[in-house]
Amino acid sequence: MIQVLPSAPRLAPERAEPKLKIPVFPARSGLFTERVGRMGTEEAFNLGARVSEVESLGERVIRCNIGQPDYPLPGHIADALKRAVDRGLTTYCAPEGIPELRRAVAESLGERHGLDIDPDRVVVFPGHRPAIGFAHLAYVEAGDEVVYPSPGYPLYESFIPFYRSVPVPAVLREEDGFGLTRAVFEPLLNERTALVFLNYPSNPTGSVATRAQLEELAGLFLERTGPHARVFSDEAYEAINFDGHEHVSIASLPGMESRTILSSGCSKTFAWTGGRVGWAVYPTVREAQVARRLSINHFASIPPYNQWAAVEALTSPLSAPAIQEMVKGFQRRRDLVVGGLNAVPEFRCHTPRGAFYAFPNVSGALERLGALRAHARLPEEVRTHTSPATLFQLFLLHAYRVATVDRRSFSVHGSEGQHYLRISTATSEADLEEAVRRMAAAAGDEAGFQRFVASGAKLTLS
Amino acid sequence: MIQVLPSAPRLAPERAEPKLKIPVFPARSGLFTERVGRMGTEEAFNLGARVSEVESLGERVIRCNIGQPDYPLPGHIADALKRAVDRGLTTYCAPEGIPELRRAVAESLGERHGLDIDPDRVVVFPGHRPAIGFAHLAYVEAGDEVVYPSPGYPLYESFIPFYRSVPVPAVLREEDGFGLTRAVFEPLLNERTALVFLNYPSNPTGSVATRAQLEELAGLFLERTGPHARVFSDEAYEAINFDGHEHVSIASLPGMESRTILSSGCSKTFAWTGGRVGWAVYPTVREAQVARRLSINHFASIPPYNQWAAVEALTSPLSAPAIQEMVKGFQRRRDLVVGGLNAVPEFRCHTPRGAFYAFPNVSGALERLGALRAHARLPEEVRTHTSPATLFQLFLLHAYRVATVDRRSFSVHGSEGQHYLRISTATSEADLEEAVRRMAAAAGDEAGFQRFVASGAKLTLS
Repeated sequence: MIQVLPSAPRLAPERAEPKLKIPVFPARSGLFTERVGRMGTEEAFNLGARVSEVESLGERVIRCNIGQPDYPLPGHIADALKRAVDRGLTTYCAPEGIPELRRAVAESLGERHGLDIDPDRVVVFPGHRPAIGFAHLAYVEAGDEVVYPSPGYPLYESFIPFYRSVPVPAVLREEDGFGLTRAVFEPLLNERTALVFLNYPSNPTGSVATRAQLEELAGLFLERTGPHARVFSDEAYEAINFDGHEHVSIASLPGMESRTILSSGCSKTFAWTGGRVGWAVYPTVREAQVARRLSINHFASIPPYNQWAAVEALTSPLSAPAIQEMVKGFQRRRDLVVGGLNAVPEFRCHTPRGAFYAFPNVSGALERLGALRAHARLPEEVRTHTSPATLFQLFLLHAYRVATVDRRSFSVHGSEGQHYLRISTATSEADLEEAVRRMAAAAGDEAGFQRFVASGAKLTLS
Repeated sequence: MIQVLPSAPRLAPERAEPKLKIPVFPARSGLFTERVGRMGTEEAFNLGARVSEVESLGERVIRCNIGQPDYPLPGHIADALKRAVDRGLTTYCAPEGIPELRRAVAESLGERHGLDIDPDRVVVFPGHRPAIGFAHLAYVEAGDEVVYPSPGYPLYESFIPFYRSVPVPAVLREEDGFGLTRAVFEPLLNERTALVFLNYPSNPTGSVATRAQLEELAGLFLERTGPHARVFSDEAYEAINFDGHEHVSIASLPGMESRTILSSGCSKTFAWTGGRVGWAVYPTVREAQVARRLSINHFASIPPYNQWAAVEALTSPLSAPAIQEMVKGFQRRRDLVVGGLNAVPEFRCHTPRGAFYAFPNVSGALERLGALRAHARLPEEVRTHTSPATLFQLFLLHAYRVATVDRRSFSVHGSEGQHYLRISTATSEADLEEAVRRMAAAAGDEAGFQRFVASGAKLTLS
């Protein structure tokens, strides 16, 4: 049973040396393991309690922090769910997912991307998070390198210290439209690369990639990494594209299907974040079987009635109009928020092409408020767990009743010197207009900001 | 980011030296990590495909392998689920579970066991499996010792090689009614013990523990282990007790509430294995927060409509009669199966006091069939991944169309020399009577058995 430990991890190359601390538990108390302290988290989930706390003191908070569509679950999907319950489909089922759903996923993705997908390459999960954790577990040895977008979805990074792999953040720049350029990507890839996370449309930036851009990334990946390196293509927002853009999956490019884990699910496309139905298409059946084995240990299976509802979602002709209406709404709100923010001199907001977030640069506001100096003066144990934009985020929440998410919550590595907030547009237009007004007011309230920072309020998220 | 590895694990004490191999993937191919090959599994999940394969060749297989009640989900619970969907409770919710369900769990367990449980100690999971994996992750360092029943639920063991802890199987004996005695338990506990799994009523033996027996175990645990050791009390079958036995939780004994993770869920009590609603009550709020943090990384939350249905299940007066009817049915089937098996000279079946399994000793059949010799003659690479009872299990499946589960699937360590099968009674009485008849016939069919072993059929489960 007891085997030798794997060899010590290679040292991280210089670029990956952490300058900021990822939030972790304090050193082992004797009760918890050392490893549990190395698991990062998604700070956005801890914001809910703080928002409620603020609301309990007075007026309502406008929630621009929530990553879930505010559109309803389409009726035909809800009906399919209820029908499956009535048919007694309420027992254990195949841990890899029911064959009908795996076939529907294979056919729907196959048709959209011109691929011929064996349903046995598809594994269904309770949401698409398990696919992220399992990819770290199954493909990345300690010391291997993991490339991921920064800013990016926080779970790409949170498993890196846990499995002692080497973080290689691909730091995205506003001047590139938050796209991943050759200049950024090429130097990050090498024979130690085990996993590359891509996420288009992107959370939090709303950036999308054209076929030409993906072809360039695919070419670099195939040229520079070993045969066992994998791309994890997180396509959770695949359906939410603006201005007529058509989503392209990197898995559809020559040579990439056998190297890509394509992951998505029902949460965003069908406004069904509470269904917890996600999936991944693995490069091979063998890799899907490994994921299935891990699923048995962690969940046994997911509710079959949810899976039947997902089959309806993927196959019913009623789904496309519901998605279209939602996407049109998100595009309208994007225009409203981006236009509103860009009319404020202290903000500068790039135009997202997908997903439902705006990601304004708030440097101007931070400068005017003195947030950079305020941050620099914080005691080290606070300063390294927060950022100037985090101070503005908290000021907005406590003093102006608008909840947003700071840049630092979307990959800590690479966040230094980047001053952004994420504004979710998954709320009403009236609320979004009011939120922009409040943000503009907050950006001019230097005295209020200084009072807030000196008030003793907690200045970190964790 | 890169930190030193924890010190090398202590060597396992002699008793824990593995004599059998836990089924693992072949050594790293270059694609998969070494660690993924160290994750065990629940072999029962792989039996389904084999059963279907056999059925595709001919007549129906009687499925006595399935660990799920064949009673329907009670109508009031299904209705609550559908109502919650209609109310639009289909979005993300708190990763620790909705407050209403955590309160219902705290109140229901508190009332039953005379405890005053803070709902903030309760965390809801997609089934109770995550609580098992997270307990290994959060409480057990490499080299720490994990005590678990053998025979026992396979997931207790499957995480041990993964986290490089030391397996300390508590080998249960038929002559003790598969109870955990002082003589067995006492020598297993020491200051290196990190986690002790208990499971009453037991899967696979149906054994239950009296208050006096639990008091003895609790006393030994408190006396012999350090303050950070935890009992993980898996009470998934808490509602299914026979002959008037009342379930007692070890958490209710003096000194144990602050040392016990009490885990259960809706699967067995409410015949709702497909709901994937489980929970654990942690000794402290702090420990629950650690579990919550791990949940965020792995699942975000579980469907809120499932949680509302679970609230109904725990609080409705309609639940008790449904449970009573199911338990009466399982007791009747137990009598039928145990009586039937004990009428066959080649079987000897202990009387289970809870759950819905019979666990007959099949030594007589193995002897008559020559299964021990047949096993001993197998090539080593096959022999170490199977057992004489496994050969009988597969013979029963292929030649007599009865699906059962072998002893070896319920903890590999400690299984050597133990000759049992698990018969699930979650099927109709007519099928159970026929299954016993077929088992009796198989036990006398030496020629058929020898033909089967020589046939080239796969003689392992994995």
